[in-house]
Amino acid sequence: MLNNPATKYRAFAPVQLTDRQWPSRTITRPPIWMSTDLRDGNQALIEPMSVEKKLRFFEQLVKIGVKEIEVGFPSASQTDFDFVRGLVDSGRIPDDVMIIVLTQARDELIRRTVESVAGAKRACVHIYNSVAPVFRRVVFGMERDEIVQIAVSATTLVKELVQAHPETDWRLEYSPESFSTTELDFSKQIVDALSSVWQPTRDKPMIVNLPSTVEASTPNVYADQIEWMCRNLERRDALVISVHPHNDRGTAVAAAELAVMAGADRVEGCLFGNGERTGNVDLVTLALNLYTQGVHPGLDFSDIDAVRQLVEECNQLPVHPRHPYAGDLVFTAFSGSHQDAIKKGFAQQQADAMWEVPYLPIDPADLGRSYDAVIRVNSQSGKGGMAYLLEQEYGLVLPRRLQIEFSRAVQKVADASGREIAANDIYALFEREYLEASAPYRYVAHQMADTSGSNHAVRVDVTVSRHQAAQALHGIGNGPIDAFVSALGLDIRLMDYHEHAIGSGANARAACYVELRVDNGPTLFGAGIDSNIVTASFKAVLSAVNRHIASVGEAGPASSAA
Amino acid sequence: MLNNPATKYRAFAPVQLTDRQWPSRTITRPPIWMSTDLRDGNQALIEPMSVEKKLRFFEQLVKIGVKEIEVGFPSASQTDFDFVRGLVDSGRIPDDVMIIVLTQARDELIRRTVESVAGAKRACVHIYNSVAPVFRRVVFGMERDEIVQIAVSATTLVKELVQAHPETDWRLEYSPESFSTTELDFSKQIVDALSSVWQPTRDKPMIVNLPSTVEASTPNVYADQIEWMCRNLERRDALVISVHPHNDRGTAVAAAELAVMAGADRVEGCLFGNGERTGNVDLVTLALNLYTQGVHPGLDFSDIDAVRQLVEECNQLPVHPRHPYAGDLVFTAFSGSHQDAIKKGFAQQQADAMWEVPYLPIDPADLGRSYDAVIRVNSQSGKGGMAYLLEQEYGLVLPRRLQIEFSRAVQKVADASGREIAANDIYALFEREYLEASAPYRYVAHQMADTSGSNHAVRVDVTVSRHQAAQALHGIGNGPIDAFVSALGLDIRLMDYHEHAIGSGANARAACYVELRVDNGPTLFGAGIDSNIVTASFKAVLSAVNRHIASVGEAGPASSAA
Repeated sequence: MLNNPATKYRAFAPVQLTDRQWPSRTITRPPIWMSTDLRDGNQALIEPMSVEKKLRFFEQLVKIGVKEIEVGFPSASQTDFDFVRGLVDSGRIPDDVMIIVLTQARDELIRRTVESVAGAKRACVHIYNSVAPVFRRVVFGMERDEIVQIAVSATTLVKELVQAHPETDWRLEYSPESFSTTELDFSKQIVDALSSVWQPTRDKPMIVNLPSTVEASTPNVYADQIEWMCRNLERRDALVISVHPHNDRGTAVAAAELAVMAGADRVEGCLFGNGERTGNVDLVTLALNLYTQGVHPGLDFSDIDAVRQLVEECNQLPVHPRHPYAGDLVFTAFSGSHQDAIKKGFAQQQADAMWEVPYLPIDPADLGRSYDAVIRVNSQSGKGGMAYLLEQEYGLVLPRRLQIEFSRAVQKVADASGREIAANDIYALFEREYLEASAPYRYVAHQMADTSGSNHAVRVDVTVSRHQAAQALHGIGNGPIDAFVSALGLDIRLMDYHEHAIGSGANARAACYVELRVDNGPTLFGAGIDSNIVTASFKAVLSAVNRHIASVGEAGPASSAA
Repeated sequence: MLNNPATKYRAFAPVQLTDRQWPSRTITRPPIWMSTDLRDGNQALIEPMSVEKKLRFFEQLVKIGVKEIEVGFPSASQTDFDFVRGLVDSGRIPDDVMIIVLTQARDELIRRTVESVAGAKRACVHIYNSVAPVFRRVVFGMERDEIVQIAVSATTLVKELVQAHPETDWRLEYSPESFSTTELDFSKQIVDALSSVWQPTRDKPMIVNLPSTVEASTPNVYADQIEWMCRNLERRDALVISVHPHNDRGTAVAAAELAVMAGADRVEGCLFGNGERTGNVDLVTLALNLYTQGVHPGLDFSDIDAVRQLVEECNQLPVHPRHPYAGDLVFTAFSGSHQDAIKKGFAQQQADAMWEVPYLPIDPADLGRSYDAVIRVNSQSGKGGMAYLLEQEYGLVLPRRLQIEFSRAVQKVADASGREIAANDIYALFEREYLEASAPYRYVAHQMADTSGSNHAVRVDVTVSRHQAAQALHGIGNGPIDAFVSALGLDIRLMDYHEHAIGSGANARAACYVELRVDNGPTLFGAGIDSNIVTASFKAVLSAVNRHIASVGEAGPASSAA
């Protein structure tokens, strides 16, 4: 059993914010998106990206529409420096994209960092230092004032250095590292000190990034912290408040959303949530969560599979099959009742109408994905799934009660094998169960004549084989099926009948489904396919009759010649 | 580019709850945990579990300490029925564990469901029907009253059927499916109607499960809904309010946590978040989130790797490398500054003290995991990582400035290869760079004499080989190193010196690190290992001298015989 955590772990202290506003707010516009895939994401990879991979990732981010991209930690490795410098020199950075470079708050590192991006059209120097009590005590052995002084000196140096490069539109970003476990008044003190040095304006704001470096509380507490900062920081109008949530408690997406409700203007994260330990918040999920609320995120994930493929290749990490929006299984319904409801939803969904398909929070087509591509049928699923598959893949539209009847056969097979059943397995089973139910009766040929002027308007002359022996039968009825049933001379009551075309033009065929009651037994279905609609219906009747005989055993000779 | 979602997707309506209480609450005790791995989880698998796998999963859940386990959907498949019936008949269910079986609200299914568990010591019949507007309109074409009637009839039937099995302690669970997208007043209406039929008591409460069947809003809205229900339902004292969050927006963990703050007594989910589409909420993360807040979850994940292994095997789905608490990479630090801080944290962490290691929200040992087992060094990491590895694996405690110096060498190699560097690679590099820096000078032998009564108290007679030629040198100093340096006759200033034992007893050796300045050049380190502490220090001095010579090129004969 686990130890008693009461003696070892400390509960996070809630924020005293009795008049908090965020729980009553909703998000009506997207935050500024900042991708740190090439920095925080990359530094947490088992194998960091090559320059070639970084370039491809960068170009993907630009294509998606990300306008603020942290491209590296150039003072920390030669690879990063060369990549960043090369990016600037190559002219690959669109004019509306700002690149961001991270550096510790140390003089020589700052100099090298500024050097790495000088000459870019828009560049942001991102300095950080750790401010949390545990760092001050355990890691640095420093007092608050010393910590503030480190950041102030760094800011002063950046301000001085960038003046040598007026061709670049410079910004400053500051992150008080481990903000989420730091006293709020101290975070305010240090940010206020820096903005006093930097002197940001509305037009050239300073970015204040408030990370949950380690996620340490329920997301509402983080939102309280962000609201407190937004309400208490000096020069708020000249600041862009940014959040950088990590996912240690599995609530980074929620933390980002509640923080935006609490006033944050900007979110830093990675595609599909890469980054140290449990990763940074996933920008894809955040963006598409806005999308399904009717807010355009300003990012383009209309070909999400391509984005996923590139990210998986660069990161050498998988996207989980259940990852929101992008996972292999998220547009798959296994439960029969889910499948049935989704089928009805698709059928009733009008183009240009509000999206309203049960169990699918987003139209897979909006992401370049499909529902039918990944639907699977197994022993836990019922009628809707296989019916949908037969329709999509084979053009067969089974009547509802036939779906129910056939689902029992599917389930038996699925139960017995315990394995997934593919679309072609289902079709094969449908063939075996219905279309090829041709013993003892098999259709051979027929002729039909309208006998106008009589109550029984139709006469059929039909040849069937029974136990391989051909029989010529004749019947009259008010329609072909009625006449055919009459010709068979059996106790058959026709309960229901459906027929539809498969395909169109010269190659079109007809699929017919009949529901019969034979010898007052239970109703059951038959199905037939033929290019002649009448032949299809005769085949369907024989299919049902044969299935009845198979289920009860043949009761004796039942031939008749009327 | 994505379509304009404003025309296609509808924003979720917020709950009007101006006096909400949950944002000011904290969680101080665990909810009742209900695992639906064998039902909701299993039905969403590509290959549902075999009976043998279900049994092993069930026993793992019992071992962890889960007391409420949904074991299947017995009316939906023969496999499930047989498993549930077998579980009851085999006597494998502990007396304090309640099994739960799900059924649609239809007579014949309810009968079969009750049949599947009759005779168990504790059993719960879990009925559900869909209540959301989209289902009423698109799927069923039914009015509110008809929906209520379905659930009331089902409840009445369960009440009647269970009376035939008084040996079982029966409970009823009701789920208004798609609660989270249903009008609150209607959810209240239907739940009130059922509790009026069932007549629960404090001792035998009715479970009211309020699912976010599809996660459709930020988690605060779900919390508002739960608080509204808790405050407005009739017979609240006789109800267990349960939540069942799905993860379509990636915020199921947050939704569950905020819902518990809002009054929920019970959480349904799966281990590591299995279930339809994006899965149910992950019970492991929820439980361990409580743990790190000083609240014992009542579940045992002290061998989380074993739990993970079983779940992965049964589900045939992976746990993501960045999954909170359980992922392969979550106790791995890649960033050098993270590694450094973690090292300091471990060093200062006292047994029985509050846990306070930077970047590690939980002690990996509490989960049967380790930090050092998964640490990796790559081109993005700095000094802390490799220093920790050398200490853990080889017993070498490098002085701080040596760590910095050596990290450059590590980084060069890592940058060049672009690949992860393992502990033995690092040690090999340390050997090559320091311990085997034996050209041109190599230590051969020495003798030492204390010359008490003199200012220069120590005299050494030392043999070194230089370019393979043995030289006998003599020096006097206030200690062995001073005397040795003097014997070498070079312009050497000793800046720093560290020495420590590796191992203990007869096999112990000493590792010595010296920081020198040769010919007024930059300071640099040397290192030596020997069973004799004096010999180790001489080797360290020669290592530093050789490294200096290698860096500047040999300036000519520098031998001296004092």
